[in-house]
Amino acid sequence: MTSPSATPSRYPYQNEPLWSRSEKALARKAFDAALGRELHEVIQEAKKMANQILQSSDLWDLEHYLTERRKEIDRKYDYRSSRISHVLGTLLREGRLDEEDLRGLPEEKLKSIRSHAKFLADLNAA
Amino acid sequence: MTSPSATPSRYPYQNEPLWSRSEKALARKAFDAALGRELHEVIQEAKKMANQILQSSDLWDLEHYLTERRKEIDRKYDYRSSRISHVLGTLLREGRLDEEDLRGLPEEKLKSIRSHAKFLADLNAA
Repeated sequence: MTSPSATPSRYPYQNEPLWSRSEKALARKAFDAALGRELHEVIQEAKKMANQILQSSDLWDLEHYLTERRKEIDRKYDYRSSRISHVLGTLLREGRLDEEDLRGLPEEKLKSIRSHAKFLADLNAA
Repeated sequence: MTSPSATPSRYPYQNEPLWSRSEKALARKAFDAALGRELHEVIQEAKKMANQILQSSDLWDLEHYLTERRKEIDRKYDYRSSRISHVLGTLLREGRLDEEDLRGLPEEKLKSIRSHAKFLADLNAA
């Protein structure tokens, strides 16, 4: 296991290990795939809702749905280096990523990601 | 021509004549018809935009379109007694109502409505 950080001042977030360039590329690929899948779901749902619009309340329900999804996606897919484990852990917890998508990352990173997923699971169960 | 108001304090808006119950009913019918037509247009456009969504930017364009239309409709269809002439004048100016829709209103009311429509036209031409 490598040391968490030789230059901790660059990574002020607790328990966030340093990510190598290749690890970041792998994480980015998993992140992009999850985002693509989630956007695809929202697009399908928006098309379905639009097709079923009968009255003005349905129209504003669609607007509300889109606004909420946009805010949620903006919040969730926050791809800053300092938050990679956090973001991937959230996606793992939501079933938007599975361990297979993260194959190739060292155990240290997987532990950090799983730890955040577990934190969210515990939070949800509380 | 009737006097503008026997109890002016109830109608603080300049040039806004008193509306009888039957005049209000007629105005309301024209108002509702215009609102119904405008909502129908927005619903059709939203369905069309939704059907054409290919990528996430199209999705958020639809959200933005709906938000703007909702705000504009809320602003435009402000049915307070004190603003009937103003609202109907706006709809007349936009072609969402025509004189036929207002048939039955006394000339005094039509003048007030046309006057606001003209004000908007002049504003637009300025």
